[in-house]
Amino acid sequence: MADKAMVLFSGGVDSTTCLALALERYGKGNVIPLSILYGQKHEKELEAAKQILDFYQIKGMELDLTTIFANSNCSLLAHSNEKIPQTTYSEQLKQTNGAPVSTYVPFRNGLFLASAASLAIGEGCSSIYYGAHHDDAAGNAYPDCSEGFYTSMNQAIYEGSGKALKVEAPFIGWNKAHIVKEGLRLGVPYHLTWSCYEGGEKPCGVCGTCIDRNNAFLANGISTLSS
Amino acid sequence: MADKAMVLFSGGVDSTTCLALALERYGKGNVIPLSILYGQKHEKELEAAKQILDFYQIKGMELDLTTIFANSNCSLLAHSNEKIPQTTYSEQLKQTNGAPVSTYVPFRNGLFLASAASLAIGEGCSSIYYGAHHDDAAGNAYPDCSEGFYTSMNQAIYEGSGKALKVEAPFIGWNKAHIVKEGLRLGVPYHLTWSCYEGGEKPCGVCGTCIDRNNAFLANGISTLSS
Repeated sequence: MADKAMVLFSGGVDSTTCLALALERYGKGNVIPLSILYGQKHEKELEAAKQILDFYQIKGMELDLTTIFANSNCSLLAHSNEKIPQTTYSEQLKQTNGAPVSTYVPFRNGLFLASAASLAIGEGCSSIYYGAHHDDAAGNAYPDCSEGFYTSMNQAIYEGSGKALKVEAPFIGWNKAHIVKEGLRLGVPYHLTWSCYEGGEKPCGVCGTCIDRNNAFLANGISTLSS
Repeated sequence: MADKAMVLFSGGVDSTTCLALALERYGKGNVIPLSILYGQKHEKELEAAKQILDFYQIKGMELDLTTIFANSNCSLLAHSNEKIPQTTYSEQLKQTNGAPVSTYVPFRNGLFLASAASLAIGEGCSSIYYGAHHDDAAGNAYPDCSEGFYTSMNQAIYEGSGKALKVEAPFIGWNKAHIVKEGLRLGVPYHLTWSCYEGGEKPCGVCGTCIDRNNAFLANGISTLSS
């Protein structure tokens, strides 16, 4: 039986590139994208995810974990009154004194990986692909993107699955510009991806993730992508 | 602000003893029991959990993760056609050639701990209590009860929470008899707990967990507990 991989897939730049890499390595029939609803302020991400799956002509799984974050005050969540900061992550970290930024959803990636693990074992996968990268972890902005987190979570999933399942984070030591470079090689349909934390008609251009996205494309000589 | 702890609490022997220990260490107002529905064949466990919370006069949280296991063929789940084995875990492991037993729910404890982590950060807890013990991990029966799993999952939660949250597994090196001994010291209301995997009026007495429970009480000189 061919190896199968599950991919944590949000419809953003990182996870779409991760999906493209998994498709290259495992082949179309052996990749299961998993998209997770967690109460984010808008559903643009998931709409983007659907368009990207159509582009690749594959089907994905969806999981709704909204109830788990019902009491969190994270600014990314629909029920929160906190505003999403309009500045870079390094500026935000000065405000938080090195604590996670206000768009950190409590242990979100840990929960996503654990959920993916439970599903992946049921689907007979041997790997979970996870698009975390170095920029997001910098300065503790998103501690659940750090290499320390990834290494121990991978080990926990390997041990807790009876050594049946591993996590692969191919971009863990990379910056976002490096991911985009790889994605351009893979022909990723970046025009379909969505990054902005706000749910407007067009990307706001001023939230942390818009700034990061634009810089990553600029570093690859591209300045006109639409979101 | 006083330290707070969340306790993974099913209403069985191990987690009820774990709850009692957390109550002794943290005090009643600082302990949040978390009970998780995951599609188990019966709801006796959760009924027991409610009675135990009444006994201690505390409130708990509930979380429904049933959808995640919808495709799993684990014999413990309501939708599965597999029968729950009527024999000891060591006999079952001979059948599985060392793979997890059929009542292993894929990465269940990993998912429970990750969910608890997301909730616990929102509730301002600094610890999660987890009643895993050595007997359940023996021979790979439940790999997500092993010390290797616990150590790396604890590290993942510590790193992924920005070093705000730890997992405590006070029984990880103990056997079940040792847990019962500690529970008797703590005055745990074992008559209210439920262990049996079947959902009958009375415990079946022949599933792996009934056998383990009875042996643990026998080792403490007790042979007449009702479930």
